[in-house]
Amino acid sequence: MASQFLLSGLLAITCSAALASDPSPLQDFCVADSKSPDPKMVKSNDFSFDGLHLPGNTSNVVGSRVTPVFAAQVPGLNSLGISMARIDFAPWGINPPHIHPRASEILTVLEGSLQVGFVTSNPENRLITKVLQKGDIFVFPVGLVHFQRNIGYSNAIAIAALSSQNPGVITIANAVFGSNPDIPNDLLAKAFQVDKNIIYKIQSQF
Amino acid sequence: MASQFLLSGLLAITCSAALASDPSPLQDFCVADSKSPDPKMVKSNDFSFDGLHLPGNTSNVVGSRVTPVFAAQVPGLNSLGISMARIDFAPWGINPPHIHPRASEILTVLEGSLQVGFVTSNPENRLITKVLQKGDIFVFPVGLVHFQRNIGYSNAIAIAALSSQNPGVITIANAVFGSNPDIPNDLLAKAFQVDKNIIYKIQSQF
Amino acid sequence: MASQFLLSGLLAITCSAALASDPSPLQDFCVADSKSPDPKMVKSNDFSFDGLHLPGNTSNVVGSRVTPVFAAQVPGLNSLGISMARIDFAPWGINPPHIHPRASEILTVLEGSLQVGFVTSNPENRLITKVLQKGDIFVFPVGLVHFQRNIGYSNAIAIAALSSQNPGVITIANAVFGSNPDIPNDLLAKAFQVDKNIIYKIQSQF
Amino acid sequence: MASQFLLSGLLAITCSAALASDPSPLQDFCVADSKSPDPKMVKSNDFSFDGLHLPGNTSNVVGSRVTPVFAAQVPGLNSLGISMARIDFAPWGINPPHIHPRASEILTVLEGSLQVGFVTSNPENRLITKVLQKGDIFVFPVGLVHFQRNIGYSNAIAIAALSSQNPGVITIANAVFGSNPDIPNDLLAKAFQVDKNIIYKIQSQF
Amino acid sequence: MASQFLLSGLLAITCSAALASDPSPLQDFCVADSKSPDPKMVKSNDFSFDGLHLPGNTSNVVGSRVTPVFAAQVPGLNSLGISMARIDFAPWGINPPHIHPRASEILTVLEGSLQVGFVTSNPENRLITKVLQKGDIFVFPVGLVHFQRNIGYSNAIAIAALSSQNPGVITIANAVFGSNPDIPNDLLAKAFQVDKNIIYKIQSQF
Amino acid sequence: MASQFLLSGLLAITCSAALASDPSPLQDFCVADSKSPDPKMVKSNDFSFDGLHLPGNTSNVVGSRVTPVFAAQVPGLNSLGISMARIDFAPWGINPPHIHPRASEILTVLEGSLQVGFVTSNPENRLITKVLQKGDIFVFPVGLVHFQRNIGYSNAIAIAALSSQNPGVITIANAVFGSNPDIPNDLLAKAFQVDKNIIYKIQSQF
Repeated sequence: MASQFLLSGLLAITCSAALASDPSPLQDFCVADSKSPDPKMVKSNDFSFDGLHLPGNTSNVVGSRVTPVFAAQVPGLNSLGISMARIDFAPWGINPPHIHPRASEILTVLEGSLQVGFVTSNPENRLITKVLQKGDIFVFPVGLVHFQRNIGYSNAIAIAALSSQNPGVITIANAVFGSNPDIPNDLLAKAFQVDKNIIYKIQSQF
Repeated sequence: MASQFLLSGLLAITCSAALASDPSPLQDFCVADSKSPDPKMVKSNDFSFDGLHLPGNTSNVVGSRVTPVFAAQVPGLNSLGISMARIDFAPWGINPPHIHPRASEILTVLEGSLQVGFVTSNPENRLITKVLQKGDIFVFPVGLVHFQRNIGYSNAIAIAALSSQNPGVITIANAVFGSNPDIPNDLLAKAFQVDKNIIYKIQSQF
Repeated sequence: MASQFLLSGLLAITCSAALASDPSPLQDFCVADSKSPDPKMVKSNDFSFDGLHLPGNTSNVVGSRVTPVFAAQVPGLNSLGISMARIDFAPWGINPPHIHPRASEILTVLEGSLQVGFVTSNPENRLITKVLQKGDIFVFPVGLVHFQRNIGYSNAIAIAALSSQNPGVITIANAVFGSNPDIPNDLLAKAFQVDKNIIYKIQSQF
Repeated sequence: MASQFLLSGLLAITCSAALASDPSPLQDFCVADSKSPDPKMVKSNDFSFDGLHLPGNTSNVVGSRVTPVFAAQVPGLNSLGISMARIDFAPWGINPPHIHPRASEILTVLEGSLQVGFVTSNPENRLITKVLQKGDIFVFPVGLVHFQRNIGYSNAIAIAALSSQNPGVITIANAVFGSNPDIPNDLLAKAFQVDKNIIYKIQSQF
Repeated sequence: MASQFLLSGLLAITCSAALASDPSPLQDFCVADSKSPDPKMVKSNDFSFDGLHLPGNTSNVVGSRVTPVFAAQVPGLNSLGISMARIDFAPWGINPPHIHPRASEILTVLEGSLQVGFVTSNPENRLITKVLQKGDIFVFPVGLVHFQRNIGYSNAIAIAALSSQNPGVITIANAVFGSNPDIPNDLLAKAFQVDKNIIYKIQSQF
Repeated sequence: MASQFLLSGLLAITCSAALASDPSPLQDFCVADSKSPDPKMVKSNDFSFDGLHLPGNTSNVVGSRVTPVFAAQVPGLNSLGISMARIDFAPWGINPPHIHPRASEILTVLEGSLQVGFVTSNPENRLITKVLQKGDIFVFPVGLVHFQRNIGYSNAIAIAALSSQNPGVITIANAVFGSNPDIPNDLLAKAFQVDKNIIYKIQSQF
């Protein structure tokens, strides 16, 4: 059994590697569900999700909530290079500066007014920002630091589409000041050009 | 001048080709605007679009309207592999069977109830279908025939995200029966196993 | 065992996903044969196929037969992004309007005369068509509706090459009028702008 | 003019780069013809080629002739990732050991008998070889050294399909012993473990 | 002239887009030099660079210096999906937390001892860190926050390879606290959970 | 059990195939270690390697030694599209003409003087060559024949970066004259335009 089992592992690696050379999927779809690998066994629920009309709970320090619809939520998204998310904002709530390492994003405002922006890479570090009203759309290129914030006294709602089934999210504050274990305190003090106590103060929040 | 000009043409082809080998964009973004190739000249409006909250005009034979937000509408989408669209449905309106040759789609219902479905490729040609309510999501894999229809007495609204900056749309009825010039009448009669007069009747609609 | 088994499933998904980022295969080849994952065990027969010189049986309603040589027929094609097919045509036989969701096609005529064509996407829906003689070649771009028909009183033979190991085939008539279950009759009536009875008549053929 | 001209050059590079991030073409097709960039101006001849039924001239030292149908011959192939070639063999003629740096190949024999083979990469350097008869098919993975030879007293004909619009050909003998200028004689002597005079003898043939 | 010129611009966009569909370059190389688009005109200097043995100037606030060898420095790198860099560290110097939006990195230590690390994306935000000695290698996956610091009293030198011709660099501190214009002070205060004055203090450093 | 096991194998193929459509990895990393598929179980050693500062043993017929750091050596490289190697050269040692079927290469000289070069594909077969000193860099495009040789009386050292986790190496002499089994002697005689005895002499070295 053991050797057979190893074979199976080898096969997974070998073949998944090679198939990367095809410029498109190799079948109609691939439902990421290790219990039903057979295309004939897929069902409509493998391609669906419900509840995106429900408000997310924004009672947290940043006053926003992201409800993801990624391959982890919809197995039928597996291999299709697309996903969605709903973002709820309390008044003045923010979606803090973050990066999607594997996707570009296009966002549309369903309710409220949002200030959005992204920062270009070195050396310019230009902030490209805009205030969006209901029905406005904005694009965030892959891998760039971006943010949104509600600039109104009412709740705001946005729908985002992302160019990967699993875009990944790197919230700057959490990754830099809240990692586990911590990034060395003195390294951050030098990186951000401030006293270690300030870095410690920030790290203690996360 | 002529030779210089030819050089420029050659360059465009040669280099665009080669760059296809990089698994990601080669700069932060590339605004598709031949008047400002300089990244330093881009502005926030190159990445935005407005009016997606406005209903599309559905007074047409199918009772639906697609409002695209592709690279043609938002030059900043160029190279980012993502786009969006709003779809409005009159009561019982349909988005007729169509194909996106270059994108998978994920759709969410903002208002109303939609029956949606896609058909797998040969030989199964399985119809995978579901009735969606407000807040429901459904996925349509790249290149497969799919449709939506409003199954209620009120208007319906959906937001779709697509995995290409320019997904392309092939409405089956228009491509097969409304091409310019027509596909030979007798060929279609044999393909659809019906009398030429029926084919002629259908072609005359487009 | 159960938990180990789950591990194996997880590995397959996790790794196949990640490997998609390499712009080329990750080894010389990957024979798609779950019984011999070991590259050292592959044999020349994993890369070969015979009988493509034999005529396909064209005694069917469309008067044509496609003999595919895809990864399902040649396991060594796995990961190489290429495949082939032979198409036989009875006199006046057709290869009905269809789409390859995952491949562009290049076709050459070995015997006879074929009219071929493809239709561009919306809004033009231009039919680009040509009559091919023995030795002529024609190209069908990925995802576009295309067809061939024998315009002579003798048999015709063509060889097609496709840019995927598993191009997929969506025969329009089968997918739209012959899906299982049927696409709702009234939806198709509205899509094709004809009476439900005509749709019913067409559906009843498939 | 000069500055405008430079802008155009910049644009070509900037945008072609970025577009590489899309996993599929960005429009139906892109005819590589700097005289008609407008999709509406393309004609069926941009997608066709004739004469592949004509025998190539094999009166040369290797006794074979390759007739390519690449993007250079068919501008409509541009961007579609596929091409074709006809190979003619005189009795005992060979298609000498060569590599396609940008494509896998699938070959079918139309006439005659061919011995074909490819060699795996280091360290195995396994020769995987087979004798093909009319109607047989064989696959050559991208980047591997491969060859064909006619093992009969009559002419042989094969049709090859390749997974790139411009596969590239590196004939080992020409690249190693016939480059311009020559690879240093003593370096080759050490690489092939033979006397410089033998290397010189081989180089003098090319 | 004007219209011809526009054509050229159109061609650049149209074709660069389409060519993105090929899984590999479309010719041997594409020197990114708008003055010599002709492959026959390239010279060995288009593929070379010198001086990587020279120490970079580390007399700056972070005590490190990156010497890039990207497509901007070596036009022959254009389209090849690879680049290099030398990193010099003064004693205790750091390469502050940063992200490459378009490349994974592999780094080897030539001199000295470095602590290196990267942080995984949400929700884990795990810090994966290691102390490297001369001859050690470490990998930083694409898009993840990573850093290096010299943990010795002597200079340190590292060579990094990156999986893009233009990886891009986003130094977190500069992008978040030093963008131009600034990201709103109160947004950052909420994102990092500290007083605005602290944010102001940090912003004032950049 | 058997059937369950087969399911697992099927899943590996099905899903790895489909995932190839995403233009980037689908998670932060994928350690190629069938014993720990769980991202939470990875450790820093999965991303590291040591000993690249140690000289390779060059006492062999070509007088050089390549020390690879590929995914086989560093499981964390899996999916990241990058790798490294150290190359040691004895005085006048050579890295004989070879091809990487899956990667472009960028090389920098740490010690000594190297003559390097690559040969373009047919029909030009141009040798593009240069003498490199310490600190110089040179680029070798994917799939092209290239070589290096030490042109000094002291040892030489180079570090190479490659654009694949598993670039593959095809040493021309070994693949053409040292394959197992041999490529037919008379075929090579015709390919290289020399007497069979010379071919036999060369083959006997490998």
